[in-house]
Amino acid sequence: MGQNSPARGRPRSFDPDRVMADVRNVFWRHGYSGTSMDQLAAATGLHKPSLYGAFGDKKRLYLEALGRYLAEIRTQLAAALAQPRLLDALGDLAERAIDIFTANGPNGCFMMSTAMTEAAGDAEISAVVRGAMDSLDRALAQRFRGAIEAGELAGDADVEGLARIVVAGHYDLSARARAGYSRDELRALAARTRELVKKLGGLSEA
Amino acid sequence: MGQNSPARGRPRSFDPDRVMADVRNVFWRHGYSGTSMDQLAAATGLHKPSLYGAFGDKKRLYLEALGRYLAEIRTQLAAALAQPRLLDALGDLAERAIDIFTANGPNGCFMMSTAMTEAAGDAEISAVVRGAMDSLDRALAQRFRGAIEAGELAGDADVEGLARIVVAGHYDLSARARAGYSRDELRALAARTRELVKKLGGLSEA
Repeated sequence: MGQNSPARGRPRSFDPDRVMADVRNVFWRHGYSGTSMDQLAAATGLHKPSLYGAFGDKKRLYLEALGRYLAEIRTQLAAALAQPRLLDALGDLAERAIDIFTANGPNGCFMMSTAMTEAAGDAEISAVVRGAMDSLDRALAQRFRGAIEAGELAGDADVEGLARIVVAGHYDLSARARAGYSRDELRALAARTRELVKKLGGLSEA
Repeated sequence: MGQNSPARGRPRSFDPDRVMADVRNVFWRHGYSGTSMDQLAAATGLHKPSLYGAFGDKKRLYLEALGRYLAEIRTQLAAALAQPRLLDALGDLAERAIDIFTANGPNGCFMMSTAMTEAAGDAEISAVVRGAMDSLDRALAQRFRGAIEAGELAGDADVEGLARIVVAGHYDLSARARAGYSRDELRALAARTRELVKKLGGLSEA
């Protein structure tokens, strides 16, 4: 009741998941430097001392939001890559990415849209970014090796090159989503990436 | 003399090119939101009223820096793509990009590293970004069409697909440079992109 009564907005309980979802959305739209603790307090319905007490300063809040985002992305990535057929896996990955990149406006990937600006001056953030990039490279290379083992790709397929096309294409989708490209435009770009993978990997039509 | 005497730092004259180079470097490192007019005044050696008077507010300064950067990039791009052999052109483009992305630390592309955060909330900035992306797509597609005309690529080569690999690879290099990948790592990634182009385009060894 009182300040947080339903009449003045949805009631807020101190649910860390909800608080961090609100925090993430503010950072996602405004970036790290463009977000103030006042904005975070307003978005979460919490007083600043409560935010500081529970999560630490703005940088801790940002790193927590980034870590939670990357954990979510790893789950989505694993689900997509678990599709038994390679092209289904890549198609599912692109659909999930485009959904995330456009769900709340021209957001792009949370990491690519907000962490890159900070990465140049903050070793802690750049280490998280580099770790996430290396991890995505490895996941795609592993998926392509799986497609070789499954007989979908030739044994001498350029696993690292194929991974590079998909990963770079993924970052490209993020940037274009952030710049306002439509979902249809992004889907067409993702389809083109899959065509390149088919051609390079010698895959027949699915 | 006085405040800007050589003994206290290099003397500053009101040279718009030098002022804007200093402005760009501050935005490049700290991003748009992370840069204050105080920082810009300190970096340029100008008082804030002089900066406002000559260039307008922070957003005008940023758009001016972005526009000058993109003009420089267009010049570099045209010089690289003018190389008569396709693989030389792509190699030169990658070398120039890596030089720019790493010359003053882990900078990445000025646009990709600073404008993406703002693009979601600022129609003027996102229009500049989208225009630059579309322009790079067109320049690469045109270069690949030129390689078809020159007999380097087969007539049915996937011009749009090849352009997508190079452009997405370029944005990937920017992101990785910003995340601290070394020049050698970036060069290896660029070489892998050229291998993909060779294979897709049926190019023989240069």
